Amino acid sequence: MSKAAAFQALTVETLPTRLVGVEALASRIGGDSASWDVREVGDGNLNLVFIVKGDKGSAVVKQALPYVRLVGESWPLPLKRSFFEYHALTRQEARAGAGTVPAIYHFDEAQALIVMEYLTPHVILRRALIEGRQLPKIARDLGLFMARTLFRGSDLSMKARARKEDLALFADNAELCDITESLVFTDPYYEATLNRHTSPQLDGLVAELRADRDLKVEAQKLKHMFAANAETLVHGDLHSGSIMVTDSETRIIDPEFAFYGPMAFDVGMLLANFWMAYFSQSGHEEDGDREAMRGYLLGVVVETWSVFRTEFSHLWRNERTGMLYDRRLFEDRGDPLGAEQALDRVLHDIWIDMLGFAGVEIHRRILGLAHNADFETIAEEDLRARCETKALKFGRHLAVNRHRLLSLDEINTLAIRIEKGNVA
Amino acid sequence: MSKAAAFQALTVETLPTRLVGVEALASRIGGDSASWDVREVGDGNLNLVFIVKGDKGSAVVKQALPYVRLVGESWPLPLKRSFFEYHALTRQEARAGAGTVPAIYHFDEAQALIVMEYLTPHVILRRALIEGRQLPKIARDLGLFMARTLFRGSDLSMKARARKEDLALFADNAELCDITESLVFTDPYYEATLNRHTSPQLDGLVAELRADRDLKVEAQKLKHMFAANAETLVHGDLHSGSIMVTDSETRIIDPEFAFYGPMAFDVGMLLANFWMAYFSQSGHEEDGDREAMRGYLLGVVVETWSVFRTEFSHLWRNERTGMLYDRRLFEDRGDPLGAEQALDRVLHDIWIDMLGFAGVEIHRRILGLAHNADFETIAEEDLRARCETKALKFGRHLAVNRHRLLSLDEINTLAIRIEKGNVA
Repeated sequence: MSKAAAFQALTVETLPTRLVGVEALASRIGGDSASWDVREVGDGNLNLVFIVKGDKGSAVVKQALPYVRLVGESWPLPLKRSFFEYHALTRQEARAGAGTVPAIYHFDEAQALIVMEYLTPHVILRRALIEGRQLPKIARDLGLFMARTLFRGSDLSMKARARKEDLALFADNAELCDITESLVFTDPYYEATLNRHTSPQLDGLVAELRADRDLKVEAQKLKHMFAANAETLVHGDLHSGSIMVTDSETRIIDPEFAFYGPMAFDVGMLLANFWMAYFSQSGHEEDGDREAMRGYLLGVVVETWSVFRTEFSHLWRNERTGMLYDRRLFEDRGDPLGAEQALDRVLHDIWIDMLGFAGVEIHRRILGLAHNADFETIAEEDLRARCETKALKFGRHLAVNRHRLLSLDEINTLAIRIEKGNVA
Repeated sequence: MSKAAAFQALTVETLPTRLVGVEALASRIGGDSASWDVREVGDGNLNLVFIVKGDKGSAVVKQALPYVRLVGESWPLPLKRSFFEYHALTRQEARAGAGTVPAIYHFDEAQALIVMEYLTPHVILRRALIEGRQLPKIARDLGLFMARTLFRGSDLSMKARARKEDLALFADNAELCDITESLVFTDPYYEATLNRHTSPQLDGLVAELRADRDLKVEAQKLKHMFAANAETLVHGDLHSGSIMVTDSETRIIDPEFAFYGPMAFDVGMLLANFWMAYFSQSGHEEDGDREAMRGYLLGVVVETWSVFRTEFSHLWRNERTGMLYDRRLFEDRGDPLGAEQALDRVLHDIWIDMLGFAGVEIHRRILGLAHNADFETIAEEDLRARCETKALKFGRHLAVNRHRLLSLDEINTLAIRIEKGNVA
């Protein structure tokens, strides 16, 4: 297959013929393409995903489509998102280490396809959390991943020109940014066409939130930050559906939304998804059997943030090689406490903004276009609406009060009180 | 002259021969290049500037050099800054109106030269303020210019993709950003090689400022914002040396430092230069004859900010066509007060950050490499040092207390008290 060939979507039938010439694939799974077993397993919103098995091994082929799969051809989307995904994966691996993302075997820009490691027996984290599985390593792995990618992709670490060049490269990922800008920060807060919510159960609360001036101003302020504050290369879509796990491994996938944005964005989106898992547990509960799982999830929130903060602080002290918070102003003149003061300042800002991003992420998953399975798989609508109501109120509290919330203990206590029906 | 020709610096002697073929120039000043009168008048830090007069008129030819003129060939600097200046000028004219910047006649990218309007009888604003001239229009003109360029170059006005493309274009202006990042935010706060200050008079205060932890953390936080917060296309060097005036006209020149940065940067740098003019007046005073000028300068600060805020608010209400603070969330559902609340939030953030940028701009002009004539032309060193001391202390107060300062009345009252020796 020539790289210059016009884009053509793969199918289960055409994949072997079209990719047999890709040495990086054939050498891994076996060159007898006629015997390849190909399955299309894409359950995401945007792309084709094939698992290809040969006599020597297996691989995943992910191909972008020129439109949003969830919506159809009426919503075109650039194939170039595959290019951004590829470049984000290589940077993430360099910054967070091999084994944090899938290994990449081959990239074909014209065909918008990436051949990568088939992760097995990994499952999607969201699925595991819905099933009530307690994964022992996720908090630590994800805290480290975020600290390392966010720190090392910023002016705290990179040379200024290198970061600006990379910023320019990813600035072209505008259509995927537009999805987040619209679907996360704006659409949930008015009657946008693509919105949906559990109705009529949530109608009253939804109307209340859409009339909530403080909430909407906050959401737009967060959007302002998302769009303008090009601090670091963020994953851009770091929810529990973008993470694959076993008990001993955590892999972060699908960074096609990557762009230079605020450090707090990935952190907030991830914690929001843990909190949604928390509020959805009662929808999957039988005879109170999810109480331990709820405790586990709030513990994951605390540990993820704690690991993130500890690792970020470690990198701050040991790898601050960029132009910001120059050591010549602090450590080099005997004032390490000055550098600590600056670190507290930076972490404090991430904390405040992270809570805001978490709040709006919760809202958009219940009020917007892209819902998540935590709630969607609760078949009984009244039960689902009760779970969603709690999450919505919790999200509103985070977004509007983010400057005044001091600790995750306090926030998790609020979550427990909301879950038990003691407040709201 | 072919555009493909290798870069060659112009001289007074070679300019007529080399530019006679530029129709946009010849048609304006007359085609008989042998009779052109050419003078090199560049007194800035970076470039060559020629005034060319022919029998029909005159023009300015500005050419970049591949190094920093102030320092020499040991500090190379990309010729491409001329490209950024050209593109900034065209955007500023489109956003703030013809007559706010020099008219552009011709741009030659390979030769890094711009042929533009010769402004006469305009003088550099800094020079006029040193001489004690009260220009009646500057506050209004500059307030409008900043509001219009900063608002219209942001996601408050532009389409998101257009802003991101422009952001990517200007991200390549990294070397000029580096100058600001180093010279404004870092070098003044440690013993950088290129620094200088009035010595020994200021030695004690300089040591104090360089040991001032709160100040240095604040300066680095501002640098973080400068580098990461790509809100809008800023001029990037908007001091009183980048403004040419008559009593009735104000023109903004030299935007070669333009890039996507925080809205507050231009505003803070400009007000800082008015405050420096204020504190330098006593160095140029004879028999108390600058008292009215001091009052005028503090009035200019108040009016510039007031006009900026009023025009920014006007644009917010009438031209908010970008993706931020979407009207569908506010005005369109009968909540104009929601949009006002968001506007207050945005202006409040600009206010706080503007004060910080003003503080460090004052410091770098007294402690760093690029001093300004307001102080430099005070020949008597003890007198100069007294002026500089007041400005340094004022700048420190702004930078460190920016979150707690409420009004320009309060700040100008402090300036008066410092000037009179009542505090500090």
